[in-house]
Amino acid sequence: MSDIHPSSGPTGSLPAGTALARVDAGLDQSLERLFALLRIPSISTQPAHAADCRRTAEWLRDELAGIGLDASVRETPGHPIVVAHDLGAADRPHVLFYGHYDVQPVDPLALWDRPPFEPAIVDGPEGPRIVARGASDDKGQVMTFIEALRALREADGRLPLRVSVLIEGEEECGGPNLRPFLEANAAELGCDVALICDTSMVGRDTPAITASLRGLVGEEIVIQAADRDLHSGMFGNAARNPIAVLADILSSLRTADGGVSLPGFYDGVTVPPDGVRARWREIAGGDEALLGPVGLAEAAGERGFSAVEQTWCRPSCEINGISGGYEGDGFKTVLPAKAMAKVSFRLVAGQDPVRVRASFREHVRARIPADCRVEFHEHGGSAASAVPTDSPMLHAALGALTAEWGVDAAVIGSGGSIPVVRELQETIGVDSLLVGFARDDDRIHSPNEKYDLDSFHRGTRSWVRILHALATAGA
Amino acid sequence: MSDIHPSSGPTGSLPAGTALARVDAGLDQSLERLFALLRIPSISTQPAHAADCRRTAEWLRDELAGIGLDASVRETPGHPIVVAHDLGAADRPHVLFYGHYDVQPVDPLALWDRPPFEPAIVDGPEGPRIVARGASDDKGQVMTFIEALRALREADGRLPLRVSVLIEGEEECGGPNLRPFLEANAAELGCDVALICDTSMVGRDTPAITASLRGLVGEEIVIQAADRDLHSGMFGNAARNPIAVLADILSSLRTADGGVSLPGFYDGVTVPPDGVRARWREIAGGDEALLGPVGLAEAAGERGFSAVEQTWCRPSCEINGISGGYEGDGFKTVLPAKAMAKVSFRLVAGQDPVRVRASFREHVRARIPADCRVEFHEHGGSAASAVPTDSPMLHAALGALTAEWGVDAAVIGSGGSIPVVRELQETIGVDSLLVGFARDDDRIHSPNEKYDLDSFHRGTRSWVRILHALATAGA
Repeated sequence: MSDIHPSSGPTGSLPAGTALARVDAGLDQSLERLFALLRIPSISTQPAHAADCRRTAEWLRDELAGIGLDASVRETPGHPIVVAHDLGAADRPHVLFYGHYDVQPVDPLALWDRPPFEPAIVDGPEGPRIVARGASDDKGQVMTFIEALRALREADGRLPLRVSVLIEGEEECGGPNLRPFLEANAAELGCDVALICDTSMVGRDTPAITASLRGLVGEEIVIQAADRDLHSGMFGNAARNPIAVLADILSSLRTADGGVSLPGFYDGVTVPPDGVRARWREIAGGDEALLGPVGLAEAAGERGFSAVEQTWCRPSCEINGISGGYEGDGFKTVLPAKAMAKVSFRLVAGQDPVRVRASFREHVRARIPADCRVEFHEHGGSAASAVPTDSPMLHAALGALTAEWGVDAAVIGSGGSIPVVRELQETIGVDSLLVGFARDDDRIHSPNEKYDLDSFHRGTRSWVRILHALATAGA
Repeated sequence: MSDIHPSSGPTGSLPAGTALARVDAGLDQSLERLFALLRIPSISTQPAHAADCRRTAEWLRDELAGIGLDASVRETPGHPIVVAHDLGAADRPHVLFYGHYDVQPVDPLALWDRPPFEPAIVDGPEGPRIVARGASDDKGQVMTFIEALRALREADGRLPLRVSVLIEGEEECGGPNLRPFLEANAAELGCDVALICDTSMVGRDTPAITASLRGLVGEEIVIQAADRDLHSGMFGNAARNPIAVLADILSSLRTADGGVSLPGFYDGVTVPPDGVRARWREIAGGDEALLGPVGLAEAAGERGFSAVEQTWCRPSCEINGISGGYEGDGFKTVLPAKAMAKVSFRLVAGQDPVRVRASFREHVRARIPADCRVEFHEHGGSAASAVPTDSPMLHAALGALTAEWGVDAAVIGSGGSIPVVRELQETIGVDSLLVGFARDDDRIHSPNEKYDLDSFHRGTRSWVRILHALATAGA
């Protein structure tokens, strides 16, 4: 709970200054609240953590209600969704904040320097960082806008514009329940613009609005050969090895020049104008800027595209997991019955996830020997998304970001997938502004995930500035 | 312990009949002893089971001593070796029994119908079977000769020829300690012929002596790309995927016609004479005879060789295990830092394991991208082995097997690897007779491993006959 000081000042007429001072003065308490959120292991893809997901939703509802919003936990067939509103500024634009409270699994646990759900501030080469699973993706980012709302309420007694909040719990597991929820609640959630806080800055200090995101098609394939594990001496050579079948198939997914080999995969895919590519090279630096920090040197994908272009504007096929046979210590001369791989495709504008999935399955089936079987398990699918880059609101937000960071804010693409952008367009007909304060070295989805203290603090300040700017911007 | 009835009958002059009757009358007690042995989880490749391996060695020592042999547990740098002697029949040939007391790991445990170390007699389609890890490989087979020695001692008061026994505990983990032990104890273990009980019959009812075995080269490779797991959206396409690198390498190990692609892999490999291949086809049946029972239909290896030929006389490359990235429930859009595979080569006469290993590592290194690293871990290496097929002892043993089973015994090859055959030739200069009573459907190394009660009972009877026959055969 926090203490609200009512005020009679006209909405939005106060400078952001008072609220910014509140953010600075309340940083320690803001961190305490973020840490409480980070301590809940809300791993949405693991059924064992379903109760933790619900607990997280209830925690967020209570925080938002404490700030003074009309907040509720809404049921879905899966993990619940948190919705909150403050529509007091009747004559002002209406924004909808989006974030997700669920996090990725933590394995391999052995590679964490400290327990993933015991957050701490650790000194990093570029200043203090908040270390925990979800610190950056997405709990830290969610708390930047929640703490900004708190500071604005505390400083001004009310918000400078109409605000709704939607925080879901199935972003990391490709859950199917958000879209139907948006359809069922389109009237309640209708707004002028969605503000999505789940993206990164460029390099360390260039604030960015992400205008395009890749889509995602996730597939799990299980190949079965013999009906039992076999002795590789008694049967090796004569009996089909499902790991070998799988390796042949996975190897066939890429061409010699680094492209994806599925027929028609690149149909409808366009290359950004040279001017955009040049600006990207300028702000993103060479391949070593992206790859050097993670110990790599050369762009692995399509020839003719820089590392940043390969992730921002080119589709990809990745193998996210593989298993089969004996994986333990020592050696076992087994010829396994089954082998499994998890494969995902990142899509760009012009690609249809349904067609890509069908083309992948056809490619796989054509390579399964007559006496083997293959099973497919679908793990989410979404098309790429893009938002207009010429709206007054986008320019107002760019101005606010530039003011906070002292560096010209950039319009960029992202290699990640945020299906909600497209779902918001298709269900309630609203475009999104994707504004986030993560850094490329945040290790999201990896051991020792972190969020710079600076990202959290100045991110919160950025939202205060953006909301004031949007309060007076045309839609 | 068992009760010994001393007798003054001249060694070997009694017919086998009395001892065979003892085997039949004592079958229940023999099974109780086998079950006690099967209950000890002597998994040699897993350090956690080292004490179980020692306990198994001590159990065998006590059994052999109880029968009246001079038995001891002998230390090695790894798991101990059991040695026993009964050299009473001074004027008779000297045989050395070999077996191993260690077993394979049991995973995947979920696929076992009952706990792997709680042996039971279960009704099978072709009669009762002993079900447990090690029932067939090799504890059940070891107990056939131990129980034969017991019956001969009980029936005749002594053995018909000089007998030594060597039972090791590192056969399943490619342990390096047997060869030095044989070298250090060559004088003590010197004999006329080694009797190795670790092989199979042909089909259900054709007893067989195995005259050739494949060698084995085991390798584990670990490929590292980035220095941490990455988000496949932020980095996918631009950052090297070590699973994809691994899949390309594994896929490159086989040629389009099913052969192994390593340069020089087939140098020195010869094809058996047409007559031998014809006899094999006759006794082994078509490909469906080997593959049908495990749910497969087509021979997967080199074109132009039957399934049985692909395992008995052709070298192979198998992938025994693979892992990388996210293998759990659901989906994780991770781009892993590492991927691992366990690969083994089965070698035939003419191939050098040292050269094959070097050629494999060269093949792999040539395919590792500049900014990735590869580690190799060696897991055992042994050349193929063969024994003469024209010795009087081999023919005496064939006759004894034919008499017990009522079917002409065959001389065959085996796809498995039993390094001790070659090690015995090279250290104490003795050839081996490989006589075993396993069936191809014993599921060795797999869940629900079994040994037919019939294999155990008639196997024990077979040894009684063989020892009597060898007692009067020339070396």
